[in-house]
Amino acid sequence: MIPENKSDLVRDLHRVWHPCSQHKDYETTPPLLVERAKGIYLFDRQGNRYMDVIASWWVNLFGHNHPRLNSALTQQLKKMAHVMFAGITHQPAIDLADSLVRLSPVGLDKVFFSDNGSTAVEVALKMSLQYWQEKGENQKIRYAYLKGGYHGETLGALSVCGLDIFRKKFEKVLADHLPVQGPDCFRCPYGLQRETCNAECFEPMEKALSDNSDTLAGVIIEPLVQGAAGMKMYPPVYLIKLQSACESLGIHMIFDEIAVAFGRTGSLFVCGEHDLRPTFLCLSKGITSGYLPLAATLTSDEIYSAFYGKHQKLFIHSHSYSANPLACAVANETLSLLTENQFLNTLQPKIAALKECGKQFDGLNGEFRQIGMISAFELVKKNKECFSSEKRVGYHIFLEGLKRGLFMRPLGDVVYFIPPLIITEAEIATMLNTAHECMNAVLNH
Amino acid sequence: MIPENKSDLVRDLHRVWHPCSQHKDYETTPPLLVERAKGIYLFDRQGNRYMDVIASWWVNLFGHNHPRLNSALTQQLKKMAHVMFAGITHQPAIDLADSLVRLSPVGLDKVFFSDNGSTAVEVALKMSLQYWQEKGENQKIRYAYLKGGYHGETLGALSVCGLDIFRKKFEKVLADHLPVQGPDCFRCPYGLQRETCNAECFEPMEKALSDNSDTLAGVIIEPLVQGAAGMKMYPPVYLIKLQSACESLGIHMIFDEIAVAFGRTGSLFVCGEHDLRPTFLCLSKGITSGYLPLAATLTSDEIYSAFYGKHQKLFIHSHSYSANPLACAVANETLSLLTENQFLNTLQPKIAALKECGKQFDGLNGEFRQIGMISAFELVKKNKECFSSEKRVGYHIFLEGLKRGLFMRPLGDVVYFIPPLIITEAEIATMLNTAHECMNAVLNH
Repeated sequence: MIPENKSDLVRDLHRVWHPCSQHKDYETTPPLLVERAKGIYLFDRQGNRYMDVIASWWVNLFGHNHPRLNSALTQQLKKMAHVMFAGITHQPAIDLADSLVRLSPVGLDKVFFSDNGSTAVEVALKMSLQYWQEKGENQKIRYAYLKGGYHGETLGALSVCGLDIFRKKFEKVLADHLPVQGPDCFRCPYGLQRETCNAECFEPMEKALSDNSDTLAGVIIEPLVQGAAGMKMYPPVYLIKLQSACESLGIHMIFDEIAVAFGRTGSLFVCGEHDLRPTFLCLSKGITSGYLPLAATLTSDEIYSAFYGKHQKLFIHSHSYSANPLACAVANETLSLLTENQFLNTLQPKIAALKECGKQFDGLNGEFRQIGMISAFELVKKNKECFSSEKRVGYHIFLEGLKRGLFMRPLGDVVYFIPPLIITEAEIATMLNTAHECMNAVLNH
Repeated sequence: MIPENKSDLVRDLHRVWHPCSQHKDYETTPPLLVERAKGIYLFDRQGNRYMDVIASWWVNLFGHNHPRLNSALTQQLKKMAHVMFAGITHQPAIDLADSLVRLSPVGLDKVFFSDNGSTAVEVALKMSLQYWQEKGENQKIRYAYLKGGYHGETLGALSVCGLDIFRKKFEKVLADHLPVQGPDCFRCPYGLQRETCNAECFEPMEKALSDNSDTLAGVIIEPLVQGAAGMKMYPPVYLIKLQSACESLGIHMIFDEIAVAFGRTGSLFVCGEHDLRPTFLCLSKGITSGYLPLAATLTSDEIYSAFYGKHQKLFIHSHSYSANPLACAVANETLSLLTENQFLNTLQPKIAALKECGKQFDGLNGEFRQIGMISAFELVKKNKECFSSEKRVGYHIFLEGLKRGLFMRPLGDVVYFIPPLIITEAEIATMLNTAHECMNAVLNH
C-alpha cells in the first residue's frame, strides 16, 4: 500500500485510536514517533534518544534489538512462522512448556498457551470454574480478588479487577465476584511496617474466604506488587497466609505473575522464591522479553486430569495464534538468557544501586519503595494526602521526562521504574536523578 | 535451556495442554509434530507433507514461509521488535491503520489495535457500552447475538456466543445478553432457498430488536458465514435488513469479520462488498496472513468523538503488545499482496473450481456449500438428521485425512475447507477428491 501524502503524525491523529489515551492530550503533545530502539533506548527520527524506563509497559528484559533474540526469531522464521496448535504440535512450544514446568515450583505440571495477560487470566478463571463443575461442585462459581488488584481488561479479567478506573464504566456487564480489602502498606491501617509486620491485614481476606468457601472457586492475586494500583508493595507473609487459607478451605489460588516474573523481583518466579504453590500461574509480558505477544497459564496434573477422558470433558478455549512458534522461539531464548551465567546474580548490585539512589527522594513527601528491579515513588502532599486529580501531577512529570530523555508513564502520581534488566548502575543513577529533577520541576511550578 | 532427554512427543504429552483437545485422543493419535511449512503444506520430521486445508485455523492467506512476508518481518526487526503504544506511535501501525481505513467502507475512520479475535470483539463491546454511557443512555447495556454465533472465548466475547458447546460450562459467569434465532438455510423453516429468498427468517431478529431497542447497545454478527457453527452460510439480504433495523432503532451494528475478511469470500471485506456500514468492524486472523497475533477494531469518528475531551472520558483498555510493530509490518505487506496485481481477481477461477469439484459430494447425504474461497460439506443421515455425536464421524474423517496427507479439522460432522488463497486449481481438485475419499472410507466402515 502506498501511504497517503501526509506526515505520519497527522495520519496517526486521523486514523489511530491509542490505548489508555485521552486523545485531546495528543493535540498539545503528540505521541512520540519512535523509529528504532536499541538496548534501553528509544530513538525518534531526529535521533533524540529516550530511556525506556518502564520497559515498554513492563515487557522488555534484555533491551531492544538484542542479537540473540533477533537470531532466535529469524532462525525459527526459516522453518515456519506459525501453525495451529490443536491436533498439531511443534518443538518451540514443547521446549518452552518443558522449561517453564522445570523452572517453576513443583506442582505446576502443564502449560496452556494464549496471547496476552488478559487471556492467561481468562484461561485460569475458566479452567478453575470448569474443574469444580467436573467435580460436581456446581456452586463454586465466584472469585475473591483484591481491591486494588488488576488482571487485564477483557471482561472476564475485568470482573476480578479491584480498580474503579478500569471497571466502573463496564460494571453492568461484569460477573459478580467478591472484592476484599487487601494490603495497603504505605497507609497501613494497623500502623505497622511491611518489613516487620505479620500481615495483620490478612484478616479481611481470611474472613471473606472462610465465610464464602462453599461458593468460591478461587482467589486471584498479584504477588508482592499490585502494579496498576500504583506499584503498591506488600510482604510475602501475606501470600503464605493466603496459601494456608486456600489449602484448608479448598479454594484455588491464582497467581498473576504477569508483571513480576522473569527477574523483575530478582527471581524467576515469586512463587518459587517464597516456596508457594499456586494452583494456577499466569505469565506473559517478559516471557518474550518484549518482542511478541505470548502468554502461558500453568497448572497442576490434578486440574488437568479432571478434563481427561470422555470427549465432552475437554477444555474448550482457543486463540488462532496459540503457541505461535516465533514467539515461543524468542521465549526459549529469553529463558536461556535468564538462566545462563548466573544472570540473576548480576542483578544484585543493580538492586542495591536502586536502593541507594532512591534515598534522594527522602526530601520529597511520599514513599520510595522497591522490590528487586521494580521501584516507585508515590508523590503526595503532607500527611500522605493525594494531589487533586485535576492537577495531573503525574502527567506533568511525564512531560518533563520527555524533555530530559526519559520515557516514564506515571500511574496517577506514582512515578515508577521497571527498566530492562540490562540497565547499568550508571544508568540507574541517571534514571532516578533525572526523575527527581522532573518531580522538582513540577512541584516548584 | 537444555531440553530434557526425552522425545519431543513424550515431552508434549507430559507438559503441554493443547487448546480444544481431549488429550485422551492423543494417546492413540498424537498431535502431528510439524517441523517446517512451505506454501500450503506442513512437513513433519520424516518429510511427510500435509495440505493445510484449513489454513492453520483460518489464518494463512499467502502460504507458509512467504519470501515477502518473511522479508517484511526481518526488515522491521532491524529497527525494533516492539515498543509500547500509549504515548508512543510508530510507522508500521500508522501505515496499517491508514490502509485499513482507506480499504474499508466509508464511515470506519479509526483503528484500535489488540492481539486476537476475542480482544477485537471485547474492544467493540466495551466501546459501544461506554459510548452509550457517555451519551447519557445508561440503560443501553445489552447485546443481541445469533444462536449459532461465535465471537471468541474470553468471557466477554463468550457472553455473545450462541453455541452451547463453548458457553455452557461457563454460563454462570456470563453477562445476560439477548440470543436471537438466526438464519438456518440448510434446514430453512420457511422452506426457501438461500439463493432466492428475501431473508424471511429476519423476522425474529426484527422483533427482538424493536422489542428491546431501549436496552440494546448493539447487535453482533458474523457476516455471511457462521464459522464455528459449522460454516453455516446465509445471504446478504439478511445483513441489509439488519442494517436498516439498527439504523432506525439506534442500535450499534458490530460486524465480526475475523474469519471472513481479507479475501476469504472473494472480497477484502464483506461489508465493503455489500455496501454495508457497520458501527464496529472486528478483524484478526488473516490480517498477518497467519504469521503473528494481531487484531483491529475499526469504528467511526462519531464513536471516537464521544471519548474525546475531558480526561475522564478516555477509553481505558490496553494490552502490553498492542500494535506490535513486527505484526503490523507483516500486516502491511499482507495488504500489499492482497491489493496488488488485481490479486482478488485471480481468485475467481479458484472459486469456480471449488464449485465444480464440490459437485462430487452430490452422491452423499448432506449439503456442499460455498461462499468465495470458503466451502464445506455437512454430512448427515437421510432427512438431514445428524449422526449421533458418540460416533464422532467428523473425528474419524480427520484421521482418514491424516493418512492421506490432508490436515482437516471438521466441526462436528461438517468437513470444511478454508485453504490459503494461493492454493491452485489442481490442488483444489486434490483437496476435495481426497476429502471425498475420506468421507467414503468412514461411511463405508
